[in-house]
Amino acid sequence: MQLYWAPKTRSLKAIWMLEESGLTYDLNRLNLEAGEQQSTIYRAINPMMKVPAIIDGPVKVAECGAILAYIAEQAPAAKLAPGLDHPRRGDYLRWLFFSAGCLEAAFVQTFTKLQMPSVSAGWGDVERVMTVIDDALKDGPWLLGDRFSAADVAIGSDLRFGVDIFKIIEPRPNFRAYIDRCTARPAFRRAQEIEMAG
Amino acid sequence: MQLYWAPKTRSLKAIWMLEESGLTYDLNRLNLEAGEQQSTIYRAINPMMKVPAIIDGPVKVAECGAILAYIAEQAPAAKLAPGLDHPRRGDYLRWLFFSAGCLEAAFVQTFTKLQMPSVSAGWGDVERVMTVIDDALKDGPWLLGDRFSAADVAIGSDLRFGVDIFKIIEPRPNFRAYIDRCTARPAFRRAQEIEMAG
Repeated sequence: MQLYWAPKTRSLKAIWMLEESGLTYDLNRLNLEAGEQQSTIYRAINPMMKVPAIIDGPVKVAECGAILAYIAEQAPAAKLAPGLDHPRRGDYLRWLFFSAGCLEAAFVQTFTKLQMPSVSAGWGDVERVMTVIDDALKDGPWLLGDRFSAADVAIGSDLRFGVDIFKIIEPRPNFRAYIDRCTARPAFRRAQEIEMAG
Repeated sequence: MQLYWAPKTRSLKAIWMLEESGLTYDLNRLNLEAGEQQSTIYRAINPMMKVPAIIDGPVKVAECGAILAYIAEQAPAAKLAPGLDHPRRGDYLRWLFFSAGCLEAAFVQTFTKLQMPSVSAGWGDVERVMTVIDDALKDGPWLLGDRFSAADVAIGSDLRFGVDIFKIIEPRPNFRAYIDRCTARPAFRRAQEIEMAG
């Protein structure tokens, strides 16, 4: 598996997930300042010209949620996704799409002070998004209970981004404790070292 | 399987997908004007208080992309998703998340005239999103080539919504032909009848 990435982007999510998976992979850093994401070669991997993306033999995957879902599928031994018949399968899928569709949108809304009626916005509004996550973390330690999954890589990364990096979301106690549990994981620490080493 | 839905919402995506799947299901229409989506019972199904959502025994699924992915998994005979080792598996997952993260965001940006630098927006910008879809439809007839999949339910529904219902995106020739192929499918027509019958 080849990971295309750049520091200080959403790539850390993919590196963290790969480190959780136990799969072997190669890192290919793109120089975004030099515009390498716009090259013909990279556009054939991800026409959106964004990182991260992965290639795995003939398979190309872009969009963070898709990358997490794909890695979880390819590394069943790491148990990063409940099986197709598991009662939490629905929650697992929901959280992956919640990250892509609701939490990212809530960040955009906060950043830009976007006004949009909550009845038409797919994510409702920022307060609703935060409350839903807060409630889901009450039991813990992970979104699916005792079991860590790719859903935690998605939502844990997002919350850390919003609370610690951009400081655009309120550090509710459940968020703080959850981010700390996420960032204490050996795989997260290795991912962070990989990102810092460039 | 129980589908919670309401007319003139994103529910049509889920109905169309269920009709493609061949699974049997019950329809539970929520009266949004009466606030049924805010009931304690419904919040236990989808705390975001949005439709559609499904329950399947102990499994609850919300967020359109998650619902499509789940139905495809539960109906393998309908072949609505490439298998885990299929070369197009990555494209399949990418399109599901592209719908949730990029195309929905592009609609919001168009609706609200949101200004955001394309380097920080996960979806880049509206033009980029539309061009990526347009290019992907050049070969056709479906996003994954000859094979119709849940990715077409996602992107096909979105494009129809943007071009035909809200008229907020430019009806490029590839979009028009693709929407027409989608809406000509017997499963789509049945879904539309179900929605109209309420």
